[in-house]
Amino acid sequence: MERTLAAELSANAGQRVRLAGWLHHQRQLAQVTFLLLRDRSGIAQVVLTDPADREALAELLAETVVEVEGNVVANDQAPAGVELVDPKVAVLAEPAAAPPFELRRPKVNAQLPTLLDHAAVSLRHPARRALAQIGAASASGFRTALDRAGFIEVFTPKVVAAATENGANVFPIDWFGRRAYLAQSPQFYKQIMVGVFERVYEVGPVFRAEPHDTVRHLAEYLSLDAEMGFIHDHHDVMRVLRDVLSAMVDAIADTAEPALRHIDLDLPEVPAHIPTVDFDSAQHMIEASTGRATIGEPDLSPPDERWLGEWAHTEHESDFVFVTGYPISKRPFYTQPDPTNPAASNSFDLLFRGLELVTGGQRLHRYEDYLDALQGQDLDLFEGYLEAFRYGMPAHGGFAIGLERWVARLAGVSNVREATLFPRDLHRLTP
Amino acid sequence: MERTLAAELSANAGQRVRLAGWLHHQRQLAQVTFLLLRDRSGIAQVVLTDPADREALAELLAETVVEVEGNVVANDQAPAGVELVDPKVAVLAEPAAAPPFELRRPKVNAQLPTLLDHAAVSLRHPARRALAQIGAASASGFRTALDRAGFIEVFTPKVVAAATENGANVFPIDWFGRRAYLAQSPQFYKQIMVGVFERVYEVGPVFRAEPHDTVRHLAEYLSLDAEMGFIHDHHDVMRVLRDVLSAMVDAIADTAEPALRHIDLDLPEVPAHIPTVDFDSAQHMIEASTGRATIGEPDLSPPDERWLGEWAHTEHESDFVFVTGYPISKRPFYTQPDPTNPAASNSFDLLFRGLELVTGGQRLHRYEDYLDALQGQDLDLFEGYLEAFRYGMPAHGGFAIGLERWVARLAGVSNVREATLFPRDLHRLTP
Repeated sequence: MERTLAAELSANAGQRVRLAGWLHHQRQLAQVTFLLLRDRSGIAQVVLTDPADREALAELLAETVVEVEGNVVANDQAPAGVELVDPKVAVLAEPAAAPPFELRRPKVNAQLPTLLDHAAVSLRHPARRALAQIGAASASGFRTALDRAGFIEVFTPKVVAAATENGANVFPIDWFGRRAYLAQSPQFYKQIMVGVFERVYEVGPVFRAEPHDTVRHLAEYLSLDAEMGFIHDHHDVMRVLRDVLSAMVDAIADTAEPALRHIDLDLPEVPAHIPTVDFDSAQHMIEASTGRATIGEPDLSPPDERWLGEWAHTEHESDFVFVTGYPISKRPFYTQPDPTNPAASNSFDLLFRGLELVTGGQRLHRYEDYLDALQGQDLDLFEGYLEAFRYGMPAHGGFAIGLERWVARLAGVSNVREATLFPRDLHRLTP
Repeated sequence: MERTLAAELSANAGQRVRLAGWLHHQRQLAQVTFLLLRDRSGIAQVVLTDPADREALAELLAETVVEVEGNVVANDQAPAGVELVDPKVAVLAEPAAAPPFELRRPKVNAQLPTLLDHAAVSLRHPARRALAQIGAASASGFRTALDRAGFIEVFTPKVVAAATENGANVFPIDWFGRRAYLAQSPQFYKQIMVGVFERVYEVGPVFRAEPHDTVRHLAEYLSLDAEMGFIHDHHDVMRVLRDVLSAMVDAIADTAEPALRHIDLDLPEVPAHIPTVDFDSAQHMIEASTGRATIGEPDLSPPDERWLGEWAHTEHESDFVFVTGYPISKRPFYTQPDPTNPAASNSFDLLFRGLELVTGGQRLHRYEDYLDALQGQDLDLFEGYLEAFRYGMPAHGGFAIGLERWVARLAGVSNVREATLFPRDLHRLTP
């Protein structure tokens, strides 16, 4: 008999079917045992009434892998309105021990470090699964939007010869006896590839040797990167980013919908025009509203970002707000200055519910501008990058979204590690 | 005026349009100059007849970024049957130098090391672009097939605490003062995730510190990994792999078709049933046919694989052939033995045109089997992995496809580095 999934049960009322999955829980009442079977699609209820069966199965550990043949009948009390009766249960694989916590509870009763230590089993909990499903759907939506807009996916190296991009916070590698580094971002490579394909994206890991142990930082995370040529300025990039975010939300709604029931997730609307505020204006608004000395600071503080999140929500009913025109002094060397105000830059951050989610902007594209920007540095280390500009490059820009931060913020979890399958940080290298 | 792409010209005959791109080449004849403009979609021909214009543009370097307004007219002699006349050309960005080789030639006149050293410009050549487009389409087809089959994408760490999978050929990392390693594959993680989602895939980089300098090996490459639970045996995995390959070929035909004109590519048919031969039978056939002492060898040699490729082509008109039942002694510790012959394994290789392209098989899934398989090893190093089996795991298996090797073999390029944007090997860390 072909296997049926839990989610397909209600379409099979009246049929005899075969399910397979994990023994999520069994509830033993006086006359009946309800056995909950979990598979990749959801949870099905199996009703055991035969006393011999009930006794035989009573000792099965949670997470036993089983298959169950039975008749599908409607029952308003059962999950999804159907259950399996007259079942025949066979054990496919027995666990060696009971799980270290109960996966059947709405929230696992364990601290985050314990959950992370036991990822192989804690990830089976529907709420933790849901975050991974949201991540997968988000990556898929990102690619869908960019494929539609003529972008092409690229795969660039994660091992680089020199720590040229930010200079600090890199992980050294022993590469056949030479020193190399883990890439902090695909920034240089995606710019090079604009010279080849105009519009490129990459979904891949990046590595930051952040010596800080915070709830917002991972030492390895997934970066959703895009870069595009033939732009007028950063506003063209922001329009593409808006469409990307919208497609990410749509993909979550379309493909991860069953997962959403297990978590407290409030999917945002992405407005057709995301409210946009200039850095200086933002500082003026914040200082006028809060009285906090803000004007002239070189960057926005976390309270500033939260204020802007509130402002966007109140004034524009938007969970998103763009801040443009950050001081050029605070942006990377490849950032394009604002042609009307060289102290400012053609850059932006996107705040989502008061937290920085995306950084982007227009880049320099003229070879001479790079020579100026890199004055005093060893240009040999930048050779492969500079070639892209030496041989003709259009005006271009792009952005990077941190996938785990997006998922964490969406789902309202306070620690980004919860939105990661196997987090890597200052202390954690396993599992 | 909105920008028009080169590939859209023929749909715009009779219109005045604006193109933008790179000056691919200009051919100066007595009375006319043909200017070829390259953009992300292809190449357009622009006809200059005004003597002042011709003179003004004559000195432009190849790869100058330009925009051109002009009238689209039909001309059977022009590429795609249309060209731009009465043009107005504006320079958007001037290169600082002429490219180190001529991108306009059907084949760039330079050796591979030179092309790789100058990747930022050599990748702009239509034939090199085509290989990257085939790679992107292949990855997309891989995901499409697996999404359709209920798989979910996962993102697993590329930095691991111990070199437990193969033991050798790993790159050490300095991780905040501790020793860590680059992951050789997502094998352990994708198995763990079978316990969570049953069916998972990952598209990501893997790292092999191969001290060999061959045309087939990269130290960093892209692995297309899949793993699935609730299988009967490895033949279930092989059926999914067959559908994946078919979707990869379809995706190339659908999305990379314009690219294919620039290279000599012969897209294979993926048969509904890929011919399958048992390892022992294969050795008997090879020895009987070639007279070469083959029977009893622990593995197939490259000439053996070529022979099988020929055999599949001649006997089954197939570019693909599965070899099953490799000796268990030659497969990794997590491989499921053949229940009818414990010296053999429930594993397979897929040969494509006589070369190993995919390795896969059924894995052990019982905790005790892992304890046996890992006897004598420090189990603490495997703790996070073993938990997946301790807490109930169904029979499962999977496979891994090396993307660059697939693209190289498809396009008939002899060195896998040609199928990589920025290859990493024993000697090469830049660009």
